[in-house]
Amino acid sequence: MSEEKIAIIGGTGDLGFGLALRWARAGVQVIIGSRDETKAKEAVQRLQKALDAHAPTESSRISVSGLENAKAAAQASILVLAVPISAQVAILKSIRGSLGNAILVDATVPLAAALGGKPTRMLRLWQGSAAEQARELVPAATPVLAAFHNVSAEALQDLSVTPECDILVCGDDEAAKQTLFRLVKLIPGLRPIDAGPLEMSGIVEGITALLISVNRRYRVHHSGIRITGLDLKA
Amino acid sequence: MSEEKIAIIGGTGDLGFGLALRWARAGVQVIIGSRDETKAKEAVQRLQKALDAHAPTESSRISVSGLENAKAAAQASILVLAVPISAQVAILKSIRGSLGNAILVDATVPLAAALGGKPTRMLRLWQGSAAEQARELVPAATPVLAAFHNVSAEALQDLSVTPECDILVCGDDEAAKQTLFRLVKLIPGLRPIDAGPLEMSGIVEGITALLISVNRRYRVHHSGIRITGLDLKA
Repeated sequence: MSEEKIAIIGGTGDLGFGLALRWARAGVQVIIGSRDETKAKEAVQRLQKALDAHAPTESSRISVSGLENAKAAAQASILVLAVPISAQVAILKSIRGSLGNAILVDATVPLAAALGGKPTRMLRLWQGSAAEQARELVPAATPVLAAFHNVSAEALQDLSVTPECDILVCGDDEAAKQTLFRLVKLIPGLRPIDAGPLEMSGIVEGITALLISVNRRYRVHHSGIRITGLDLKA
Repeated sequence: MSEEKIAIIGGTGDLGFGLALRWARAGVQVIIGSRDETKAKEAVQRLQKALDAHAPTESSRISVSGLENAKAAAQASILVLAVPISAQVAILKSIRGSLGNAILVDATVPLAAALGGKPTRMLRLWQGSAAEQARELVPAATPVLAAFHNVSAEALQDLSVTPECDILVCGDDEAAKQTLFRLVKLIPGLRPIDAGPLEMSGIVEGITALLISVNRRYRVHHSGIRITGLDLKA
């Protein structure tokens, strides 16, 4: 079992729940965070059921709990923020006093849908990206990474599917990146790629709108991306 | 042999020359355009030499000529604009009177390097993207597509390598897209993907900066992207 304890802020939503499910299955300690602790605990039950149905032998060793977001943040060594852009600022303000030494991984995508626009269009945030907006809102000592924007939430939630996607990770803290890389590698089908500093995150967020456009054109739900030409082992 | 005649505006540069080489090899009629006709003709000789060295049996059936940009444009059914962003506006103004019914494929990437900045940073153009800037500069009847931003120019120029990259194509003219798709498929290793309307091109252009960042981090030269989860034949 990994020594890391991951809190998924917004763990009842599609992306957050999918990540919680996959990490729980891999034996990582997961805390599902929600604004409403009752909903968090319901998500834990839903997760347990999904694992029981699909992988009963693995479900005995999982460690998942459900807590209100700030309590979840206080107990974790890594937080993944998987919330709609419309909720990002308020939720970060509600948890930033509880971060301790944790790494914050922002997965927020500023889709224009948040303001009633198209999901294939992006909002242009003053800071450059949702992740850079998150960077401003948490203590300077908190390492902030951007990741998980491009993987299909639907694929993550369906244990009969192996997601096929590279996880482009942006950030300015190399040690935090290495920690996240190890955790990404625990989920079959995902491969972490170092995409550079946090200032690259706006491009990675934009790829989500591109994949939504591709999903529509090709009538699929699971499109993702792979970086080619890297000659990486494993 | 394809009935299309492709003019590569900026065909003496890395990306343009690489595309000219690959299409010529595939039997497509190619015109290398340059601001300087002498340079265009030198590039034709260079192309012929590269094919002679690598694939002598194929070099006999190629059809490549070199012309000044506007003359090249006037003779082609498709133009690929493969010029630095700093030259894009001036060159488009110089050829827009010669476009006839041709399709314009913009491959320009607005990297901050054009103003002395980092090649991993983008310029934010008023129109949203270089391709949308091109759209403004040519007649309304000219179909404008965006493509070829992400493929490694180095890989295209090295005939011992098969490039491994999807070509994300943006545009608002479906018939033009289908024409370009056919031409992309003639180059082994490239796969055309419909990325949606021209307004998505800013994201596709941005992926180039991301790949430059990845190339640096991983000390490679040929990184590219593939879209996964499409279940396409061939």
